Amino acid sequence: MMRTRPLKVALLGCGVVGSEVARIMTTHADDLAARIGAPVELAGVAVRRPDKVRAGIPAELITTDATALVKRGDIDVVVEVIGGVEPARTLITTAFAHGASVVSANKALLAQDGASLYAAAQEHGQDLYYEAAVAGAIPLIRPLRESLAGDKINRVMGIVNGTTNFILDKMDTSGAGYSEALDEATALGYAEADPTADVEGFDAAAKAAILAGIAFHTRVRLDDVYREGMTEVTAADFASAKQMGCTIKLLAICERAADGESVTARVHPAMIPLSHPLASVREAYNAVFVEADAAGQLMFYGPGAGGSPTASAVLGDIVAVCRNRLNEATGPGESAYTQLPVSSMGEVVTRYHISLDVADKPGVLAQVATVFAEHGVSIDTVRQKGKDGEASLVVVTHRAPDAALSGTVEALRKLDTVRGVASIMRVEGE
Amino acid sequence: MMRTRPLKVALLGCGVVGSEVARIMTTHADDLAARIGAPVELAGVAVRRPDKVRAGIPAELITTDATALVKRGDIDVVVEVIGGVEPARTLITTAFAHGASVVSANKALLAQDGASLYAAAQEHGQDLYYEAAVAGAIPLIRPLRESLAGDKINRVMGIVNGTTNFILDKMDTSGAGYSEALDEATALGYAEADPTADVEGFDAAAKAAILAGIAFHTRVRLDDVYREGMTEVTAADFASAKQMGCTIKLLAICERAADGESVTARVHPAMIPLSHPLASVREAYNAVFVEADAAGQLMFYGPGAGGSPTASAVLGDIVAVCRNRLNEATGPGESAYTQLPVSSMGEVVTRYHISLDVADKPGVLAQVATVFAEHGVSIDTVRQKGKDGEASLVVVTHRAPDAALSGTVEALRKLDTVRGVASIMRVEGE
Ligand SMILES: NC(=O)c1ccc[n+]([C@@H]2O[C@H](COP(=O)([O-])OP(=O)(O)OC[C@H]3O[C@@H](n4cnc5c(N)ncnc54)[C@H](OP(=O)(O)O)[C@@H]3O)[C@@H](O)[C@H]2O)c1
Ligand SMILES: NC(=O)c1ccc[n+]([C@@H]2O[C@H](COP(=O)([O-])OP(=O)(O)OC[C@H]3O[C@@H](n4cnc5c(N)ncnc54)[C@H](OP(=O)(O)O)[C@@H]3O)[C@@H](O)[C@H]2O)c1
Repeated sequence: MMRTRPLKVALLGCGVVGSEVARIMTTHADDLAARIGAPVELAGVAVRRPDKVRAGIPAELITTDATALVKRGDIDVVVEVIGGVEPARTLITTAFAHGASVVSANKALLAQDGASLYAAAQEHGQDLYYEAAVAGAIPLIRPLRESLAGDKINRVMGIVNGTTNFILDKMDTSGAGYSEALDEATALGYAEADPTADVEGFDAAAKAAILAGIAFHTRVRLDDVYREGMTEVTAADFASAKQMGCTIKLLAICERAADGESVTARVHPAMIPLSHPLASVREAYNAVFVEADAAGQLMFYGPGAGGSPTASAVLGDIVAVCRNRLNEATGPGESAYTQLPVSSMGEVVTRYHISLDVADKPGVLAQVATVFAEHGVSIDTVRQKGKDGEASLVVVTHRAPDAALSGTVEALRKLDTVRGVASIMRVEGE
Repeated sequence: MMRTRPLKVALLGCGVVGSEVARIMTTHADDLAARIGAPVELAGVAVRRPDKVRAGIPAELITTDATALVKRGDIDVVVEVIGGVEPARTLITTAFAHGASVVSANKALLAQDGASLYAAAQEHGQDLYYEAAVAGAIPLIRPLRESLAGDKINRVMGIVNGTTNFILDKMDTSGAGYSEALDEATALGYAEADPTADVEGFDAAAKAAILAGIAFHTRVRLDDVYREGMTEVTAADFASAKQMGCTIKLLAICERAADGESVTARVHPAMIPLSHPLASVREAYNAVFVEADAAGQLMFYGPGAGGSPTASAVLGDIVAVCRNRLNEATGPGESAYTQLPVSSMGEVVTRYHISLDVADKPGVLAQVATVFAEHGVSIDTVRQKGKDGEASLVVVTHRAPDAALSGTVEALRKLDTVRGVASIMRVEGE
């Protein structure tokens, strides 16, 4: 069974993820060979700093000329773990053109240019796999693309950013404020020096675009994803959430509209009931909840980042691509046949939890309720608290289009009796 | 892209699962065609009772001659959802011999004859897929075989039987005894009239055999799986579990030994900490926890049975097999290259929670502790409760080989001062 010519892997990038990929390829070489049906060897490693000591990697494999490496022509699989858009994009398309398949962990690039990368892979008859790009070690892309290929997925809702989950979990359990929790995350290495991509939801939005495209067999661009970060979540929001039997998570939510004719994708903090499986996802773990017509509710849970978990997903893809090559076949390519349009956030149907600071005098509640009614938003519960001439109103709505909900808030802000809108948070997962 | 000759599917069995497979194939025909790259059609349906009304299935497709159907020669995929060993086994091997690949949901058959079925598939260059055989709709076989193909799995621990999880959950939440909870499960359709296969752990043991073989790339037969049912779990056990911050689940546990040279597979009730992700799996849901070297801890959660969830998994396999056929390739076959031996239960390293009824007099604890020490079992905690000359001792051990633990219990039973062993339960997931 076993053929002797080894399959050749070129590694682009040897940082947090790449160094682990190289380590596992070396230490598990026999297992990989047995599982693939042919030996697999590291044929070259492209980096920026050639003189850095890289444990376990023969010096002669190191190069700074990534382009020459992908053009060699004898490479079977190019593993792109450089990150960022360029030179990663050009290296990937060059790899395809020179007869290699590609495994990538690059969510930013895939969310932005997935369609053109898929097209390039198909043009050259090559594979493009990227399990590691979403939720690290958690098998998610393959289950969605393959296990659920005979089902109709209606919703994908997940915690897909470990940094922000760590921060929110800290705020929840310790009562800390956002910046205190961020400091702790940074100290422990869970947050980068510049945490913008995580805390402003850019990283999660890239993953949401990828997941929505796969789940609904359509094309969802990064610009199609509504995005709200979690920097404004306060300790008071957590207190309100607790009163409702909820916690707060930064969620990536991809949904098919009720009529099935469009989809939406969004990232924002939201309250979810403590009884929801996503509520108990602690620390930097990721988890993704999937609802499908026939399968019902599924959840996938695990470490969403880190060198070795991410490398596990990359290695799974390397094995798959190598098996495909031995079969002289390719795996499933892009599936965007439904061409479902992506609706804007205004059309999302959701619920709001709104805290208002109001004047403590009779008739305020009636005024506020009228504004909701005028916008066609029906109220689920109201809680009124008064102290020293000040009062607060906490309103939780029933489900309504986001546009109607935000229109309501805008109108509330204009009421004389409303001194301020203390917080607005969507409520999901019920 | 789309070829016009349809791929032909023969359905063997049209009961709970089969009827849902037929329904989805019909209602989702366009989606399936787009995802596969070719239309797929139902070419025949074998049943026992031809005259039963089967909604949505053209009468001319129905046959009682399953053998003739699989021998037709124009069938691409045979879907075996009859269940049981014969005639399922012969039909499957006949299908391979006549040029068809097979998708099956039959855990009993796969656990017993997986190796010979794989061999037959390989001999004829056909696929054998069976995602639905373990944990229903939950993508599990494919993640283990493919997503984690580059990793080293050390443990698979799961709730893989919905009936028993429903019963245990009822006992936990309502304080009901076993038979009361079983009655409720039966009334609600969660337990069959004869619940033996579920409550005695046979169903879970079949799944454990399948999972262990895949996870460790070795061959694990049904007989290799240690099996203990959950009919003896009492309300008192749940009370003890609560005192320890635990609940009780029927677990299927597949482990690699610490030295990596052997594996074990077992099914028994066990206490697990409430903080463990498996502890919060409620009702008839299934969940499987996987620990791998690089990936870390993963969990897969969802409905483990039911017509449409199981059909979702079958359909995913149908799509995969059809794609393989269009590629003129097959997916990964059996991978048993490690040939790791399966050790017996005595070699499993675990912890015991033991409740003893003892004489309420001085020196009993010393006597009991001596027995543990003589067997090399170290004690974690002891709780002593006395009332009216009777007393009870609850001992929780540290990790030790199961043989040493059961030797300890045997010796304890022989002590004069030990009136009885009220319960023994393993403690897992810490
Ligand atoms: N880290 C995670 O937990 C994680 C999780 C999921 C996905 N990912 C994705 O995995 C990818 C890699 O992440 P990482 O954390 O491993 O990044 P990293 O630690 O910064 O490593 C990047 C590597 O790329 C090399 N590199 C940078 N520019 C290059 C160029 N122009 N030519 C050749 N090599 C170049 C660097 O070389 P030097 O070593 O010489 O600096 C370094 O080895 C990213 O797409 C990221 O989004 C990461
Ligand atoms: N039900 C679940 O939730 C579930 C979940 C996971 C896996 N599975 C597995 O799926 C398989 C099917 O389960 P099921 O619940 O669908 O069983 P089921 O409802 O009892 O259906 C069995 C079907 O097989 C047909 N059949 C029986 N003997 C036959 C024979 N000799 N020739 C042709 N047809 C025959 C029956 O015909 P009639 O209709 O004429 O009686 C019936 O249509 C089993 O292996 C089971 O373990 C089931």
